[in-house]
Amino acid sequence: MKFGGTSMAGTERIRRVANIVRRQQAAGHEVAVVVSAMAGETDRLVNFCREANALYDPAEYDVVVASGEQVTAGLLALTLQAMGCKARSWLGWQLPVRTDDAHAKARIEQIDSAAVLASMAAGEVAVIPGFQGLTPDRRLTTLGRGGSDTSAVAVAAAIHADRCDIYTDVDGVYTTDPRIVAKARKLHKITYEEMLELASVGSKVLQTRSVSLAMKERVRVQVLSSFIDDGAPPADALPGTLIVAEDELEGADMERQMITGIAADKNEAKVILTRVPDRPGAVAHIFGPLAAANINVDMIIQNVGRERGETDVTFTVPHADLARTQALLEGQKEAIGFNRIISDGKVAKISVVGVGMRSHAGVAAAMFKALADRGINIQAISTSEIKVSVLIDEDETELAVRVLHTAYGLDAHDEAA
Amino acid sequence: MKFGGTSMAGTERIRRVANIVRRQQAAGHEVAVVVSAMAGETDRLVNFCREANALYDPAEYDVVVASGEQVTAGLLALTLQAMGCKARSWLGWQLPVRTDDAHAKARIEQIDSAAVLASMAAGEVAVIPGFQGLTPDRRLTTLGRGGSDTSAVAVAAAIHADRCDIYTDVDGVYTTDPRIVAKARKLHKITYEEMLELASVGSKVLQTRSVSLAMKERVRVQVLSSFIDDGAPPADALPGTLIVAEDELEGADMERQMITGIAADKNEAKVILTRVPDRPGAVAHIFGPLAAANINVDMIIQNVGRERGETDVTFTVPHADLARTQALLEGQKEAIGFNRIISDGKVAKISVVGVGMRSHAGVAAAMFKALADRGINIQAISTSEIKVSVLIDEDETELAVRVLHTAYGLDAHDEAA
Repeated sequence: MKFGGTSMAGTERIRRVANIVRRQQAAGHEVAVVVSAMAGETDRLVNFCREANALYDPAEYDVVVASGEQVTAGLLALTLQAMGCKARSWLGWQLPVRTDDAHAKARIEQIDSAAVLASMAAGEVAVIPGFQGLTPDRRLTTLGRGGSDTSAVAVAAAIHADRCDIYTDVDGVYTTDPRIVAKARKLHKITYEEMLELASVGSKVLQTRSVSLAMKERVRVQVLSSFIDDGAPPADALPGTLIVAEDELEGADMERQMITGIAADKNEAKVILTRVPDRPGAVAHIFGPLAAANINVDMIIQNVGRERGETDVTFTVPHADLARTQALLEGQKEAIGFNRIISDGKVAKISVVGVGMRSHAGVAAAMFKALADRGINIQAISTSEIKVSVLIDEDETELAVRVLHTAYGLDAHDEAA
Repeated sequence: MKFGGTSMAGTERIRRVANIVRRQQAAGHEVAVVVSAMAGETDRLVNFCREANALYDPAEYDVVVASGEQVTAGLLALTLQAMGCKARSWLGWQLPVRTDDAHAKARIEQIDSAAVLASMAAGEVAVIPGFQGLTPDRRLTTLGRGGSDTSAVAVAAAIHADRCDIYTDVDGVYTTDPRIVAKARKLHKITYEEMLELASVGSKVLQTRSVSLAMKERVRVQVLSSFIDDGAPPADALPGTLIVAEDELEGADMERQMITGIAADKNEAKVILTRVPDRPGAVAHIFGPLAAANINVDMIIQNVGRERGETDVTFTVPHADLARTQALLEGQKEAIGFNRIISDGKVAKISVVGVGMRSHAGVAAAMFKALADRGINIQAISTSEIKVSVLIDEDETELAVRVLHTAYGLDAHDEAA
């Protein structure tokens, strides 16, 4: 079980978490719990580091920020004990959670589970601070912001857990953002691949990295809310969304749609380089420097043939990297030979995702038609095996999501039905 | 060097601390620094523990409260680095600081110093969180409130430091509390024994335990202020008070007074048991149960012979233990056979302390006369080799201290002199 910062914000909420944990143990489960720092605490600690040293040493940064999860782990163990549950904390260096030495963005290499499994078998709830680990030379590391989801999945893999329940402030994964589409439906099951596509295009339920790890280690992950009523949900109910391998879908979900979900992402910016000479190597001059600068280019379209021997090249980069992208390209202007840079931050990427589209033709065509019918102009297109994305004007984001949600038959039935 | 919570309260103050550390390093010293948590932080964490579990498991309490010093250790290392000093933190479990497993009040058994000495020899400032240690089975411990002074002395002993400088919010040890006696003088040197007597009777400059440890390990401790001007005190000046073994006093301090200091302690309460049968074993029935309940009895006076075969027994206990003491004694009423319990919380213990009194008769007599001359009634007396204490009415505390400070010639010279 993993609880995020909002669920751990203060002793009252920690008591609520302890109740949820206790019910799982009472239902006969052996339980390990991974916790985040109290909401706001990591920000407070990061700010201290920035004030102390703008160019901070990530090794000492890790010493400071790892303390937030240490506090909540101890407090949850204390709270469980107050309820009569045996519990103890296992800090990252105590298990240990072995990581590489990339401070502030460490990767988990291995978790020693023998001691914690023995403790769990003896009836103790194991409480493990997320986010933290230990380098080969025994210094503290952290996994990067949001890393506690990854900690939870890694712990679940190490102890061969039946399931990794990630409690958040939403009660599952939806077909699309319920704030945009009132008729969005909660999904009972979703595949790792679909979750990855939805996460990376703007559905912020889980850290992408934790989903990749779950897929690699085949950890069954359930997303559910710690804010449902504290009353009587049976401990074994599955009220959230289960993230599983594709072979676990068969049969279990007969009414499953071809399309699983629709995501909108406003964090991309569009860049057009006009009149790029249409010769071998020109495109390499554009994207080589961007890759070297660690700028993640997403959609790429080349409009050939407007002028003879010239072409416009359109692509998207994260909004935050737009200024850096422009500066880099200006520096390469002669090497590339373009005419000018046009950029547009007011775009949105709309994606339809579903493993079902592998066996169904026409998903992309249906998308283009549905958008065209509402007069929404498509500025760029990219596709993967289980995803079709289009770039549109940011102002049309909500309209596009609603139109597609209906077009693919995702709307929840009316209550009358 | 050790810095307390007030000195570490926020990044601005930590920068001031880093400046003091940097000057010591610039003067050619190898430096290890022990730090407390930010002022108020340990209270905040203790409160979380109390809210989580009133009868908290001290092992998990330690996990929570040890985080405060972890944060300041990381921040001081970062701040030193920002000033161009090489620095790194060494957490209690990293050195490790080995303790017993008495959680929340652990005792240091041994500190591994090889790694930290190598780091210091390579020019790195070692930053070590106070207050924390590691049990034999690798769980976190803390040393009890105020334990960072003890950490500092233990580290100084382990690395064979030339000196242990403890920075506090006072600039040294005074002949008495300067808030009571304006003419109190700062002492240049004081012996461990004197410091222990002064500390245990109410001069709260250093934790008693740290002074005992310094005496045992012969660590030269200097108390000084981290709040003196940030300008230009030469790094090797000794502006504070040096606490040393008695043999280090010889010759160095010709003008040393027979009496070193005067302390007042309002935290004691007086208990009188009237008409206790004057027979063997009666007193054991009184003090046996109190000792078993861990109540620290200080002064004891038996006034024999008021009635034949009966006696009044007077003693003092810490104010906080008065109610418990009364309850315990009521429970023993038949076994002891006393008539009634009279208690008085409005008392103060005034002590004159000095190794010089070993070779000078008449110190106690001078004390009694000075107090009698001002009409101050003495309710009880106790003495040790280097201390005479009397119990008086709490309202006369300040008067008594001033009278004695003058009587023993401790007043600072007038500025005109």
